[in-house]
Amino acid sequence: MNDLGEFELIERYFRHPTPHALVGPGDDCAVLPAPAAGMALAVSSDMLVEGRHFLPTVPPRLLGHKALAVNLSDLAAAGARPLAFTLALALPRVDASWLEGFSDGLMALAREHGCELVGGDVTAGPLNICITVFGEVPERGALLRSGARPGDEIWLSGPLGDARLALEAFRGKVELDGADFRSTRRAMEAPQPRVVLGQALRGLASAAIDISDGLLGDLGHVMRASRVGARIDTDSVPRSPALARQPLVLQRECCLNGGDDYELVFTAPADAATQVQAAGERAGLALARIGRIEAEPGLRLVDGAGRPLTFESRSFDHFRS
Amino acid sequence: MNDLGEFELIERYFRHPTPHALVGPGDDCAVLPAPAAGMALAVSSDMLVEGRHFLPTVPPRLLGHKALAVNLSDLAAAGARPLAFTLALALPRVDASWLEGFSDGLMALAREHGCELVGGDVTAGPLNICITVFGEVPERGALLRSGARPGDEIWLSGPLGDARLALEAFRGKVELDGADFRSTRRAMEAPQPRVVLGQALRGLASAAIDISDGLLGDLGHVMRASRVGARIDTDSVPRSPALARQPLVLQRECCLNGGDDYELVFTAPADAATQVQAAGERAGLALARIGRIEAEPGLRLVDGAGRPLTFESRSFDHFRS
Repeated sequence: MNDLGEFELIERYFRHPTPHALVGPGDDCAVLPAPAAGMALAVSSDMLVEGRHFLPTVPPRLLGHKALAVNLSDLAAAGARPLAFTLALALPRVDASWLEGFSDGLMALAREHGCELVGGDVTAGPLNICITVFGEVPERGALLRSGARPGDEIWLSGPLGDARLALEAFRGKVELDGADFRSTRRAMEAPQPRVVLGQALRGLASAAIDISDGLLGDLGHVMRASRVGARIDTDSVPRSPALARQPLVLQRECCLNGGDDYELVFTAPADAATQVQAAGERAGLALARIGRIEAEPGLRLVDGAGRPLTFESRSFDHFRS
Repeated sequence: MNDLGEFELIERYFRHPTPHALVGPGDDCAVLPAPAAGMALAVSSDMLVEGRHFLPTVPPRLLGHKALAVNLSDLAAAGARPLAFTLALALPRVDASWLEGFSDGLMALAREHGCELVGGDVTAGPLNICITVFGEVPERGALLRSGARPGDEIWLSGPLGDARLALEAFRGKVELDGADFRSTRRAMEAPQPRVVLGQALRGLASAAIDISDGLLGDLGHVMRASRVGARIDTDSVPRSPALARQPLVLQRECCLNGGDDYELVFTAPADAATQVQAAGERAGLALARIGRIEAEPGLRLVDGAGRPLTFESRSFDHFRS
């Protein structure tokens, strides 16, 4: 199995039907049809490196899932409908069972979202996964980071902090019982991109971003792009039962600075709240309102009683951690 | 400088004007306008790993050039016009002078081809460069590997083998004088993608591929996809003066199995030869006719006198070399 070559490897693990593409994988380029009238093409690219974005212990099936999930999450944050993706893969060795698991997890999520694998590259090298996704979005209707306005409410698509809690458990800094370890590990290893919600928020949300680097850091991107400030009621940030069993200071750290959540944080005018709730229900998600956009720059954190909290925003930075 | 963070780094080195994009870099997704009526989107992705695709000694400016060039070469082989690209980069450390050189070389070639950097990702990790390019191509008019027909002539866009000769010199297996080392090294480190020629060949060439893995291997892809065979006059494969000064057996190895050339090999009906020559002249290239497609499967190599040559096709395989 170890003498499986580059071309056979692609043929065996990464060649799947591409009914949408005009030209599928196996030529110099894939060719995708132009999006429908009035639509444009949303594009995002993410690179995952072992030890940085995933632990060497992660089962390959979950890694395949996550590699695509974090990219679909970017499409979700733009309100785009997934169409296709390319996969570039550097592998330290050809390991058939790894490739089978990785491909299975990747393609299961791809099929779930109607997102075709149209091409890519496989090479030898330190393990590295680079996916570029393509989606369809109305020409002037993509959700951006820059549209938040003072008075808008701030919403979350789901609970935060589990991925970070699981990481702390892996690092041996937190002890979790078996059920809590399993549920938080699942959040870390198998995030669900909020693709349906993203599309339901088109024309409704004023700004959106997905949470990869931590709520405060990613909300900070929205604040900078929109030139606004914000007030967050930290106690209203939803968290799982597993995280709620931890000390409050750890809960806050995980919820606010955790990262790797892949929930959406978005803003919408207050008078759209009913429609926002309805969009959440259509997507099968219990949305949470966690604060408000303010004209005054900066982020103000308060607890449930309205008392100010000081809390350092430490957005994840790959060159500073 | 070493404490330059991920976001500042992107801002400083990889943020350039994107007049074509509806949404440029800095949001969750870039948004590209739909291609013009009747056109579709060509997509290709390549990953470059240090020690595999480039030597650690390569000047960063040339590496930036090459990383985009090999991707533009795929667009050229499809006959597509470059539009935009994403860049994902794993860096072992933040090195300002490396980044400046890399970015300069990358963006100079990008500007030359009107290809906008619309987004991407930067992370810490073993050096890895993944570029995904987007181009525009007529909906049913992309050049493919599968269109070669018996009787078609086989053409080359330029001389082959210099990149491989330079690599052998770097490996200490060949000694070159200063001028030959410089010229062949330039071929290896600064390939010129045949983007203008690729578009000029639309509706003219029956099949095309760019030569990254070696003429025989890449022509083999065309033969398999088109279900045809071929006859090549190996002496008619053009080579540089530097390569022509080497022993014939090395010349042939470099020309036929070298790889990393990024010239186009393409096929066209014999009665289109005048138009093909004209397309080459418009692109500023001296095209060479090197053989003919035949119905009989398999590749037949002959020398200038028509004598059969036996020569092993050893297409580059990242897991077998």
